[in-house]
Amino acid sequence: MSDQKGGNQPANNNQGKKQQKGGNLAGGGGTPPADDKKITSRTADYSQWYLDIVRRAELADNSDVRGCMVIKPNGYAIWENMQRAIDGLFKATGHVNAYFPLFIPKSFFQKEEQMAEGFAKECAVVTHYRLKSTNGKIEVDPEAKLEEELIVRPTSETIIWNTYKGWIQSYRDLPLLINQWCNVVRWEMRTRLFLRTSEFLWQEGHTAHATQAEAEAETLQMVNVYRQFAEDWMAMPVLVGPKSDGQKFPGAIYTLCIEALMQDGKALQAGTSHFLGQNFSKAFDVQFTAEDGKREFPWATSWGASTRLIGGLIMTHSDDNGLVIPPRLAPTHVVICPMGRSDEERAPCTAAAEKLAAAIAELPRDDFYGYQPLRVKIDRDTKNSPGHRFAEWELRGVPVRVEIGPKDMEKSACVLARRDIPGKEGKTMGVPLDVAPQQIDALMREIQKNLFDRAKKARDATMRTANSYDEFKQMIEQPGFIWAHWDGTRATEDKIQEETKATIRVIPFDGPKEAGQCMVTGQPSEKRVIFARAY
Amino acid sequence: MSDQKGGNQPANNNQGKKQQKGGNLAGGGGTPPADDKKITSRTADYSQWYLDIVRRAELADNSDVRGCMVIKPNGYAIWENMQRAIDGLFKATGHVNAYFPLFIPKSFFQKEEQMAEGFAKECAVVTHYRLKSTNGKIEVDPEAKLEEELIVRPTSETIIWNTYKGWIQSYRDLPLLINQWCNVVRWEMRTRLFLRTSEFLWQEGHTAHATQAEAEAETLQMVNVYRQFAEDWMAMPVLVGPKSDGQKFPGAIYTLCIEALMQDGKALQAGTSHFLGQNFSKAFDVQFTAEDGKREFPWATSWGASTRLIGGLIMTHSDDNGLVIPPRLAPTHVVICPMGRSDEERAPCTAAAEKLAAAIAELPRDDFYGYQPLRVKIDRDTKNSPGHRFAEWELRGVPVRVEIGPKDMEKSACVLARRDIPGKEGKTMGVPLDVAPQQIDALMREIQKNLFDRAKKARDATMRTANSYDEFKQMIEQPGFIWAHWDGTRATEDKIQEETKATIRVIPFDGPKEAGQCMVTGQPSEKRVIFARAY
Repeated sequence: MSDQKGGNQPANNNQGKKQQKGGNLAGGGGTPPADDKKITSRTADYSQWYLDIVRRAELADNSDVRGCMVIKPNGYAIWENMQRAIDGLFKATGHVNAYFPLFIPKSFFQKEEQMAEGFAKECAVVTHYRLKSTNGKIEVDPEAKLEEELIVRPTSETIIWNTYKGWIQSYRDLPLLINQWCNVVRWEMRTRLFLRTSEFLWQEGHTAHATQAEAEAETLQMVNVYRQFAEDWMAMPVLVGPKSDGQKFPGAIYTLCIEALMQDGKALQAGTSHFLGQNFSKAFDVQFTAEDGKREFPWATSWGASTRLIGGLIMTHSDDNGLVIPPRLAPTHVVICPMGRSDEERAPCTAAAEKLAAAIAELPRDDFYGYQPLRVKIDRDTKNSPGHRFAEWELRGVPVRVEIGPKDMEKSACVLARRDIPGKEGKTMGVPLDVAPQQIDALMREIQKNLFDRAKKARDATMRTANSYDEFKQMIEQPGFIWAHWDGTRATEDKIQEETKATIRVIPFDGPKEAGQCMVTGQPSEKRVIFARAY
Repeated sequence: MSDQKGGNQPANNNQGKKQQKGGNLAGGGGTPPADDKKITSRTADYSQWYLDIVRRAELADNSDVRGCMVIKPNGYAIWENMQRAIDGLFKATGHVNAYFPLFIPKSFFQKEEQMAEGFAKECAVVTHYRLKSTNGKIEVDPEAKLEEELIVRPTSETIIWNTYKGWIQSYRDLPLLINQWCNVVRWEMRTRLFLRTSEFLWQEGHTAHATQAEAEAETLQMVNVYRQFAEDWMAMPVLVGPKSDGQKFPGAIYTLCIEALMQDGKALQAGTSHFLGQNFSKAFDVQFTAEDGKREFPWATSWGASTRLIGGLIMTHSDDNGLVIPPRLAPTHVVICPMGRSDEERAPCTAAAEKLAAAIAELPRDDFYGYQPLRVKIDRDTKNSPGHRFAEWELRGVPVRVEIGPKDMEKSACVLARRDIPGKEGKTMGVPLDVAPQQIDALMREIQKNLFDRAKKARDATMRTANSYDEFKQMIEQPGFIWAHWDGTRATEDKIQEETKATIRVIPFDGPKEAGQCMVTGQPSEKRVIFARAY
């Protein structure tokens, strides 16, 4: 069924278990084979490191269904936090959610040519609507063949614009500002957990406007919403601007994107916002009566971001010890580890941990936390060494760990350890228990900022300018973003990609504006664009 | 493509529009044909009344994809509130969310016989993974036929238990307490918006336990979670207990359910919790090492509730004026209508409305509101009469309407109108603006309670006891629940259904315990069960 590895390998699942099994580290569960414990270092094999993190931190698994992943509770909890934050940003900009059918009749698909061409090769097709059981064997019922095949949505422009036809009559019905959270299917031959899977979860916004200017303003607004989410919540710096024509969405006039740089120096497209012009309103014959009484075609945008963001989050911040999750998206903000070599020694530490946990949960809910209470866990493990326990929580990326041992109790104090700075350097000793909640709150904000600053510094350090194609070819062998002049043609872009595996990632809004000459053809170039190898 | 009506009819969509179009009632948009305005009365045609409410309040539409609905922003906002509340109850009982593939290989399906038989006749089947475009015409690529067909999940027991095989090794991996929010497809020949559609949204919990007792306790816990949600949030009273064998889930040992009564006296199954025994662990050969070292099969439960609940909500509370939504689930809690015959008259009323809206949004966020701020709208309509404006908000089911006119302003007061009691009787005049927020908060809680009490009273009034089959046959022609003795056999249940269209809805935990004789066969019966005609 599957050409992918790992679908059935034993894995620990610690989530979804009642805490009642007291002896366990929350990370506990069955002991996996020793090999499974290993995390390959980033320098040894970045790609394997990524897969090790996803497996060891129990974020996702390959399934036995070709190309489809199982998002495990630890991974899904990150997605839930992402959804809550993104959805809040959408609602703050006037959008509402709705839900459209999973299936798209084949004839709809055909109506917008570019899109049909763009997605035809990766579509799952439903052809029958019934099985039959003969002597306990289940077969497709040949008599239940659909008159028209249904495509499992790879994206929903067609079914949504077919629906908008019934919703849009007059300028008073505009703008329509609608978003959908759902699953989509794009049949991928080579998959990679979170980054590229046949089924994935995402949101797709689809808006309709009376004027071109308004639709273009929306396209820009939404890419800036993605920028805001990426930078303020994921602590992941991004470049923002249009894609080249060669990289735009099939069916779009142009595509704006946010583009991030992973630690290995490869680029990741993290969110896109498309100006669709009147392509879909014309394809589905959607017209409205304007204020002046004329019939016009509305202007469209669409924009999406997916579970791919989880891959981006991992590859931006995590280290050889495991996950690093920015506090604003962390499923668990704080873990408190009471310690002691005997029940007697542990008891007061555990009592202090419980009191502290309650105090942390009472911290004011503000926008930083999405108006949610801080999420705190107590690690009641009594079997494993402190070192082992701390390593497990580091693996899981909990931003702050609190240690309370007998020596700390003597001073009514605790130790705060921050995940973004492992080891002694990241520890604050002797923090009085009564001020610990406020210090933890402050530390969360500091960690969030530090992760962004660090990622931005790392990305900026890779940004170079190539002044000739030869120079470019050398530079591209080193990780990172490269500024270079390009003549604006698809042919040149294709040539560069063929020869260097690099693509134009984005034409940043904020870049330098000097004109020059294309590094390949010598033709005029308005300004430099950003090249990189990409996921 | 579709055999359903209404997919393309003009509809107003007011959601998803920027508020910037100031002159509009939020309910505004294009003026629909006069006919569209009508809501059939419940006594004239309950079934048409339901469809009119769904259409006029813009909750959902049939789509052009057979049997699939479009959930419009007004309807989806209710679903989001339901999801938030239900998800909170799941998390409070130790569950976490995850995500499993949309597709189920046909061979998995076959492994649990009862389930295969139960769902085979309504499965959408994916047979190909590619289209090809020939001269602009899109066709299924015959060369891209799947080796094994994929079923679009009608429910996920099989794919999830196939996955659990990799997750469960030892008793320390148990219990697994996992829930999934997703879409499912069951090919329905006769559909009805929200109540029965080919694709619907739901949650499905799937748990694994070391012992039978623990799994049965979970089954019971989860049906009580559904009861809690139905009664405390939806204000919809339910009966709780097992289904008869004839009505249980295919693959379950037994099914517990919550059963509600709609205003027309028909029953609605609103949530089910299944004890699956070891059926799925054995079918997928999932075993764990128990504390004593023996290999054992874990015990399973599954439980689900769907967008069908929106249909139940409508049919429990709404009236001939439109939707009635209990405050705890209302997308908009309060609408404030400033009035006046001129701009001069209106200006101070609008200013007061804005001040009041801000004060209401500042009310403490507590559990009653799911820790969300109260959602307030200001109706800035200047074109329509107050009567027209009020009717629109009644149609949409907003629990409390605040009216501020020039006369009220003279006294720094306002009028509060409650949706559950239309007309003058439900109005409180002369409420001082400075205490209005607190009064509104109190009113929300009163409305929530009143809706539940009223629905319970209406339901209880229909509950009758039949002492003979003849009596039963007469009674069943009147709406409601009927207590009757039954001999516990499938044959008798089938006979009753055939002859009266009534089914056993539930064997309530809380019912009277007197033994008696089956009304049909005279065989012994332990206690009476609940019959009704059902959706």
